[in-house]
Amino acid sequence: MNTQTLLINGQRLQETIEDFAGFGGTINGGVTRLALSEADINARAHFKSLCEETGMTVKCDDMGNMYARLDGLENNRPPLVIGSHLDSVEKGGKFDGALGVIAGLEIVRTLRENDIKPRMPIVVMNITNEEGARFEPSMMSSGVLSGWFDKHRMMQAKDAQGTLFKDALLDSGYEGSEGNRLKEAQCFLELHIEQGPILESEQLSIGVVEAVMGMVCYQLEVTGASNHAGTTPMKYRKDALFAANDLITEIRQEMDKLDDNLVYTMGRMNLTPNIHTVIPNKVVFTLEARHQDMETIRQVEKIIQNLKHTQEKNGCHVKADKLWGRKTVQFDEDCINLFEEAAEKMGYPYKRMVSGAGHDAQFMAANIPTAMIFVPSKNGISHSEEEFTRPEDLVKGVNVLLQAIISLVK
Amino acid sequence: MNTQTLLINGQRLQETIEDFAGFGGTINGGVTRLALSEADINARAHFKSLCEETGMTVKCDDMGNMYARLDGLENNRPPLVIGSHLDSVEKGGKFDGALGVIAGLEIVRTLRENDIKPRMPIVVMNITNEEGARFEPSMMSSGVLSGWFDKHRMMQAKDAQGTLFKDALLDSGYEGSEGNRLKEAQCFLELHIEQGPILESEQLSIGVVEAVMGMVCYQLEVTGASNHAGTTPMKYRKDALFAANDLITEIRQEMDKLDDNLVYTMGRMNLTPNIHTVIPNKVVFTLEARHQDMETIRQVEKIIQNLKHTQEKNGCHVKADKLWGRKTVQFDEDCINLFEEAAEKMGYPYKRMVSGAGHDAQFMAANIPTAMIFVPSKNGISHSEEEFTRPEDLVKGVNVLLQAIISLVK
Repeated sequence: MNTQTLLINGQRLQETIEDFAGFGGTINGGVTRLALSEADINARAHFKSLCEETGMTVKCDDMGNMYARLDGLENNRPPLVIGSHLDSVEKGGKFDGALGVIAGLEIVRTLRENDIKPRMPIVVMNITNEEGARFEPSMMSSGVLSGWFDKHRMMQAKDAQGTLFKDALLDSGYEGSEGNRLKEAQCFLELHIEQGPILESEQLSIGVVEAVMGMVCYQLEVTGASNHAGTTPMKYRKDALFAANDLITEIRQEMDKLDDNLVYTMGRMNLTPNIHTVIPNKVVFTLEARHQDMETIRQVEKIIQNLKHTQEKNGCHVKADKLWGRKTVQFDEDCINLFEEAAEKMGYPYKRMVSGAGHDAQFMAANIPTAMIFVPSKNGISHSEEEFTRPEDLVKGVNVLLQAIISLVK
Repeated sequence: MNTQTLLINGQRLQETIEDFAGFGGTINGGVTRLALSEADINARAHFKSLCEETGMTVKCDDMGNMYARLDGLENNRPPLVIGSHLDSVEKGGKFDGALGVIAGLEIVRTLRENDIKPRMPIVVMNITNEEGARFEPSMMSSGVLSGWFDKHRMMQAKDAQGTLFKDALLDSGYEGSEGNRLKEAQCFLELHIEQGPILESEQLSIGVVEAVMGMVCYQLEVTGASNHAGTTPMKYRKDALFAANDLITEIRQEMDKLDDNLVYTMGRMNLTPNIHTVIPNKVVFTLEARHQDMETIRQVEKIIQNLKHTQEKNGCHVKADKLWGRKTVQFDEDCINLFEEAAEKMGYPYKRMVSGAGHDAQFMAANIPTAMIFVPSKNGISHSEEEFTRPEDLVKGVNVLLQAIISLVK
């Protein structure tokens, strides 16, 4: 048979996505499937059963990561891994994460029904707690696999009810042995929704992701003095909000001089005492910035370090603390080329792009050749019940992944 | 005897202030004496007992306002009223309110021990729930006396524990009859701490208050769109915080063109969703402005009404809602002159000034000739355990009040 034109079963893919959306499904068509919750455990059981029906064997490692393995012709070869996550945020969508896991299953189903025996084993991976919505941090288990996060510390993570991750994992029945961890692989490939507006607005179906942007996150604290809003003349004030307002203007002016691809956000801001009749004495806000080029990130940090520590005009003090940062993760050039060739071969409009969001793939990339494919997100929305990707784009995404797999397993 | 040089007993005044500070006293030297709390009830009982010891009779009206009356030579004349409030905010100071009540007591004590029989009765008034810290609104009972607030609605006010004002008043034992309400008076005089930095910074001991500033309070709501902080290029954003930042800059520029005596504050601001990795889709903040001249307040309102309802640059929508406003309350010119003459006679450094804070006196002024005296607040601080007024300034304040009273009762 001609594997060059092999296509997945689009209807089956769509049905499987809807099928999984039932686990933790919300009345508005979204999904609440927090890591190791009942809904997640049910989705895991369903995934295991579907994989076993497809001739795969399923194992778990000590973080609850699931590995559904299809044997290859040469089983001593490192496996080819397709993976993402089945957990979601509270009131999230049905595609974020689930798509990448279901895509792996659909590809194995397609290979099997076309009697294609891969050279090396294929593993479809469901990675535990990517979202970090119930247990922080996000990308917890890929972080442990990469050696970035300490397993014992992760086990102590608590949800809002005080349940330890460790106990939730044990109770789930999905705790396996450390010996089952993925140690080496031919490559790790992840299909994911974009979670941004670029592909949709440029009318493209496929994003070939070459990197995950580096980022820094700072907390800025502006301290002034609280006084009565009615009795304190303007000249005697040390209004922390006015100082913060000037500071934000200054930061925006400086940041906007940097590269057009820089994104930066002041997402969180809290005033003290936050009473309408009292002059704020403290404003604390976050500033996070992301860019592919770490030199640009360094320029961002320079701007923050150069902020005036005494705002003459407002008499307030400015303090900047770095909360965290991460370097840009460059994906494997061979994998990227493979995806690009697959998209070209299929004739789908695509572009190479950079991910602004974090993904398990960025940790997997530490030890394994890795790359990602994006499909469009309607209005760029994710982590919302409104999250949506058109069926034809979902199918195209999985087909590009299939073509890449076929060229590797032949 | 020569009443021109009559002075109060400064040490007794100070001791009485410390005495009352024991009711609800905090370990940091402040006071928590919420309206009709046990501490307030104990302070009321102490006030009643001290007044009775000084030859006065004490009655209450239906709002729990206490009237300690010293008969005059002509008891059919309307009384001369000195008053303020014994309630405090949570962790407030020992002077805010209490000073004005204790001053009345000290003045009656001074008159009595000097055998001065006033022509008309003198009433020392303790007004219920000025602070509104336990039961909103503030200035509740003077508001009812003035006809501004509806008594039945006030009775339904609930504290944080769900207790009705009505029940707290009944349980306190200080509920009297409506017939005891103050209906007419020669004048209402209130001595209070400034709660602002003006007197201290200008090294003055006395402020003769000629008005309480009018004010407006608006709530501004800026609505944009939430998206992922990492995946959304700047050009696709509708960042409500950036729009709010521009708006605040615009407001400040316009406001700063108005009169130097205008005070304005953005004391409360809340972001939605307020997560560091999400572009804010909503910023809601308050803007309140105060000025003696209502024409300036009208200009403030014009600035707010002219705010661009679509910020082209940020694609966000701006909505402004007026929460409330109040007109400037002008005090009685005869009373103001009386205080000014008294301060001059005593040789104390003083100035005429305007109150930025609200006081019971502003409601009493609706029906009764009214004025206030301010004494300095250290660093302008009030509603804080750090609230402080120097003993010599306290004594000067009460002496000015005494001189004014003497010239009225002769």
